[in-house]
Amino acid sequence: MQSPVELPTGAALTPDQLEEKLRTVGIERYHIHHPFHKMMNAGELTKGQMQAWALNRFCYQAIIPKKDAIILSKSEDPEFRREWRKRIVDHDGTEGSTGGMAKWLHLAESLGLDTDVVASKKLALPATRFAVNAYVDLVTNEPLMVGVASSLTELFSPVAIGERVPAMLKRYDYITEDTLAYFKPRLQQAPRDADFALDLVRTWATTPERQDAVVNALLTKCDILWAQLDALYHAYVAPGHVPPGAFVPDDSA
Amino acid sequence: MQSPVELPTGAALTPDQLEEKLRTVGIERYHIHHPFHKMMNAGELTKGQMQAWALNRFCYQAIIPKKDAIILSKSEDPEFRREWRKRIVDHDGTEGSTGGMAKWLHLAESLGLDTDVVASKKLALPATRFAVNAYVDLVTNEPLMVGVASSLTELFSPVAIGERVPAMLKRYDYITEDTLAYFKPRLQQAPRDADFALDLVRTWATTPERQDAVVNALLTKCDILWAQLDALYHAYVAPGHVPPGAFVPDDSA
Repeated sequence: MQSPVELPTGAALTPDQLEEKLRTVGIERYHIHHPFHKMMNAGELTKGQMQAWALNRFCYQAIIPKKDAIILSKSEDPEFRREWRKRIVDHDGTEGSTGGMAKWLHLAESLGLDTDVVASKKLALPATRFAVNAYVDLVTNEPLMVGVASSLTELFSPVAIGERVPAMLKRYDYITEDTLAYFKPRLQQAPRDADFALDLVRTWATTPERQDAVVNALLTKCDILWAQLDALYHAYVAPGHVPPGAFVPDDSA
Repeated sequence: MQSPVELPTGAALTPDQLEEKLRTVGIERYHIHHPFHKMMNAGELTKGQMQAWALNRFCYQAIIPKKDAIILSKSEDPEFRREWRKRIVDHDGTEGSTGGMAKWLHLAESLGLDTDVVASKKLALPATRFAVNAYVDLVTNEPLMVGVASSLTELFSPVAIGERVPAMLKRYDYITEDTLAYFKPRLQQAPRDADFALDLVRTWATTPERQDAVVNALLTKCDILWAQLDALYHAYVAPGHVPPGAFVPDDSA
């Protein structure tokens, strides 16, 4: 994992100072600030651009339970594992259509995409795949608590969802509450998961080295989310250079 | 690894047919066709854009000997290893300044960059890091000969170098033969390496499954190269959205 910013070295931060630093990273770097998301919330995306977003983001949704299983596999603590496995249950559900992944496929289908094509990932942007796999690499290669810290973008997702869902319902006539069923449970799940992870990170990261590691994990995670939107913008907004082999929306064909 | 195109299933191709298919992939998908490279060869890049290219591509140069070491580590055959290790020697040299990586740093320095900053990779685009690491993941996770096949972009690099070097010398007054010293030995090394790899792939990939695997490896490698130029274009050409924390050239600040 690369360190994209220089962090001050020296004395360890207090847990409250560390939390403030992590929250500052999120406030400054979370993908809610990306031009593609701003366009989405402003009602400026074409349906084809919205399809490209849903199709590509499925690749991200699809690796979430895998990266959570890797995190689970690194823990020696049944209490931790009992709590963390809730994330896998949320994404995979208790039967076919109840999990977050199935709800994301439903969102994609509601936007007019073929769910088999979405699920195959074969029309996703290569840059999406590379960014998403960087998340798997991070939790694979870093210590357990650094992987846990990379999940802390969930501290900021309720704000994003709170902005996005009403904006999408208002500004796109083909989007309904049913389309966006994925997001509603996330408003409860994300804060529950983020509070648990934040407590652990505050307790574990008591040295400058560990604090650097968890802050950098959150920065890398923000980069992973940001890079996915950069790739969408490049391919589908401006200049609109779709890489060879990737999804071509009808309305920009 | 994702399969971005559907390949015909059924009977195995002959070695010559397989080679033709691999060469077709390269002809269609090699990054020589990317708008960023076309701009470079046409003399249309600013010095800052050229710096961004050199700084980011260093990340790619830097993982080459690592991915070759992973490939080496998967072979049981001293003859193969003796041949493949030449690649590591070429990139790392026999002393400090003689290898390809050192020559790339020299290129970056000649363009006005601080080599310590370049070598640290900390100002590289996150998308560059993700794409480059996808190459490491590919050779790590796939069988030896699939990793070997991913190197076959070298079949096409002499053409790219043959176009690029004269174009750069002619169209950018701050670029000299000394700046581009990296490329000259590549004109001998790449064909030697590519011929060796192609012979092995032709001999190994005798079933439809293996043939799919080697063709997809080359496609993924082309995607990895293409995605790096997509990210440069997005950040530094149009719309010029530099992701948070990445290199900002003087001439576009």
